Amino acid sequence: MARGVAGPEIERLIQLLARLPGLGPRSARRAALALMQKREGLLVPLAEAMRIAAERVVVCSTCGNVDTSDPCAVCADPSRDPSIIVVVEDVSDLWALERAGALHARYHVLGGVLSALDGIGPDQLTIAGLLARAQDPAVREVIVALGATVDGQTTAHYLTEALASLPVSVTRLAHGVPVGGELDYLDEGTLSAALKRRTAV
Amino acid sequence: MARGVAGPEIERLIQLLARLPGLGPRSARRAALALMQKREGLLVPLAEAMRIAAERVVVCSTCGNVDTSDPCAVCADPSRDPSIIVVVEDVSDLWALERAGALHARYHVLGGVLSALDGIGPDQLTIAGLLARAQDPAVREVIVALGATVDGQTTAHYLTEALASLPVSVTRLAHGVPVGGELDYLDEGTLSAALKRRTAV
Repeated sequence: MARGVAGPEIERLIQLLARLPGLGPRSARRAALALMQKREGLLVPLAEAMRIAAERVVVCSTCGNVDTSDPCAVCADPSRDPSIIVVVEDVSDLWALERAGALHARYHVLGGVLSALDGIGPDQLTIAGLLARAQDPAVREVIVALGATVDGQTTAHYLTEALASLPVSVTRLAHGVPVGGELDYLDEGTLSAALKRRTAV
Repeated sequence: MARGVAGPEIERLIQLLARLPGLGPRSARRAALALMQKREGLLVPLAEAMRIAAERVVVCSTCGNVDTSDPCAVCADPSRDPSIIVVVEDVSDLWALERAGALHARYHVLGGVLSALDGIGPDQLTIAGLLARAQDPAVREVIVALGATVDGQTTAHYLTEALASLPVSVTRLAHGVPVGGELDYLDEGTLSAALKRRTAV
């Protein structure tokens, strides 16, 4: 923004908003303007919600989820199946699986995947914590729910090896056609996997 | 989000973020997660920037710009040409013109355009304030910088009539091909206007 249009307080607000994922410099300006024009309805409550989040949000020391309590609501929920740990790359994946609502188990957030290119080795991830949790006799299955990328699959392989000595079965998500997906838009790898694992109607 | 994944404080943060222009429910969740994972670097400073904005931001009683002072930095700037008032629909248009940096004049934010459909008449806009400002003998030109929509043009026409009795010239923005624009993508109206107002090379 040109100097002199708005005070430094507004420019700082725009700069910080532009660092949110999904907002660029132009949409951050629009967002700042919307905030200032809806002072009571949006700016004040959002500032307050952020202050509260900054005060209370903690990372769960068990699974790595973010929540307002430690252990998090997922780890503290006694109704969840204690025999299954679902390993995910990031908290957003945990939330996505929870929205799907297909499983009522516990999670383990790795905090990334192994990557020789980015210099991410086992020590940068929470693999040691996962191995410690998997030694609990109650745990019978570890579902490796990582992305179907090269790094994701390398990490899945590493975890399978690391867990091999424990009496847990290691499983991974099925490959196939996304529900609602059109065949036309799918890559060959997905189509091959879907054909190979075809099921009786 | 499914119940039990995150506390009500986090859900509230997501709901408020989703009300920002440019963020939907899904990107608001991603933004909330990014905020919580960058607590010191982003969440705390953004909460503080919003608190400061909520405390200090005011609408300029002269031109309708939003700033941290009244009169705003634009109206208070003595180096600006006092003989020109640029009439815009919204504060975002004022900022856009300032970014272009083509003019060092003053502005007047109408707060909308006349619209029979939406029931917006002259009293809902800051037209009375504009007429009062235009009576200042220093003002020589009013540039009506409204959008080239039906309502924008109706409003421009209304303003021209209202200002007719005053010794000011009323002008509007030129129509033509946007700089960097491809002819192929332009509508017939723009192309006709650009042809009619062609200039010697």
